[in-house]
Amino acid sequence: MIEKAKKYTVITGASSGIGYETAKAFAARGKNLIIVARRQDHLEALKEDILREYPTLDVIIQAADLSFMENVYQLYADLKAYALETWINNAGFGSYARVANQDLKKIQNMLRLNVEALTIFSSLFVHDYKDREGTQLINVSSCGGYMIVPTAITYCATKFFVSAFTEGLAHELKESGAKMQAKVLAPAATKTEFGKVANNVSEYNYDKLFGTYHTSQQMASFLLDLYDSNQVVGVVDRETFEFKLCEPMFAYAGNSAHNQKLQ
Amino acid sequence: MIEKAKKYTVITGASSGIGYETAKAFAARGKNLIIVARRQDHLEALKEDILREYPTLDVIIQAADLSFMENVYQLYADLKAYALETWINNAGFGSYARVANQDLKKIQNMLRLNVEALTIFSSLFVHDYKDREGTQLINVSSCGGYMIVPTAITYCATKFFVSAFTEGLAHELKESGAKMQAKVLAPAATKTEFGKVANNVSEYNYDKLFGTYHTSQQMASFLLDLYDSNQVVGVVDRETFEFKLCEPMFAYAGNSAHNQKLQ
Repeated sequence: MIEKAKKYTVITGASSGIGYETAKAFAARGKNLIIVARRQDHLEALKEDILREYPTLDVIIQAADLSFMENVYQLYADLKAYALETWINNAGFGSYARVANQDLKKIQNMLRLNVEALTIFSSLFVHDYKDREGTQLINVSSCGGYMIVPTAITYCATKFFVSAFTEGLAHELKESGAKMQAKVLAPAATKTEFGKVANNVSEYNYDKLFGTYHTSQQMASFLLDLYDSNQVVGVVDRETFEFKLCEPMFAYAGNSAHNQKLQ
Repeated sequence: MIEKAKKYTVITGASSGIGYETAKAFAARGKNLIIVARRQDHLEALKEDILREYPTLDVIIQAADLSFMENVYQLYADLKAYALETWINNAGFGSYARVANQDLKKIQNMLRLNVEALTIFSSLFVHDYKDREGTQLINVSSCGGYMIVPTAITYCATKFFVSAFTEGLAHELKESGAKMQAKVLAPAATKTEFGKVANNVSEYNYDKLFGTYHTSQQMASFLLDLYDSNQVVGVVDRETFEFKLCEPMFAYAGNSAHNQKLQ
């Protein structure tokens, strides 16, 4: 019988970058983990690393390509066997190109992963866990989810989606008296595999191509600050690179008399 | 041989509501039309209506469900036979429900139509026509694409995507010296089939459920004002219901020193 007393933190996109370091950071907090990514070998290496340092933790590997919705639903169904505490939608990628020239196959995968998989996981997790004390949903957006960045228009639009969806969900959970908290993390440039993938290159020099950036370890530590806080948004200032915790940033219609009346 | 000298205005979601009235409004301007929607019979009725009044116009019917990407690509391929002038991505629908309770099959269709189809059509049209004088891309967003509305969180997030994508594209086209203009229309409550579809009901009373709203004819006339202007955004104020034309509303990183350096 599967141990249901143990609680787990789910992290998508855990094979590298912010997701990888976030897994280590939650392990250091004594959290059991379910780590998700396409690359099974990377997940196995991460699991070994974590268990070497924290041998009593439980680390579950789930290898899946989340740009296919059948994998998204299958993964969620598989996780019904575990008691979840925190869900971190970190999987996602970018694309640097003008809209006129962008590779639509890549764009379609990006929309499915950054927008569709995130929406489905969020909705399912909220449906099942919103009334459990201590639960959190953390969606990784971007500074580009609050400010449009040249040559990354479609990527930024996916992150505007993530920011608006998650801020709106945070309002909804609070207003309905749910116990779950929904939060947005908005990193600026962070030294990960993002640059390579977004530019379709095999080498990417963050020192040359960005003046300033954070490391994945720094971003994982900011994510933990957000996790520990009661604020909804954790955002890096794109000019100063300072991290701050704050209330939702987008306008919210709240109790406007111009909303649809309750039926 | 197909007449390539004639230019066409493409309108998706033309079987009812804002799309239907926009088709009539462009016909009144003497524009040849390609009208797209799922319901062939509605499109045929619209075509008859238009030709009765403007018998010299050419009106092409394309019946397609744009929540399937194979239909999106097929439609665009079919339209290669015509010279296009204006593309209006109006097809889209909403969903009123809490995130915890939302119907994920409906949500997935909404994401595909509101986000994915719009992105693919926009990218293909910009790729082929951005350097042609007088071309315009008009994407229909919503007030909910600038302000999050309770119980319509995921819908609003799709419209934040549309607003950010289209504003970003407008910046990109201007900066690259393209001739095409990209514009966002952001209606507030408009009496259409939106209410029925968003609430899964067969009758919907706008007088009872919204204090104030526009008619589809009014919105089509606002859309024409946007078409005639050099502004990027045409938005209804959600409180006063006044329509205004303005510059992009989201923050834009422009020439920030913190953007990725050119490679």
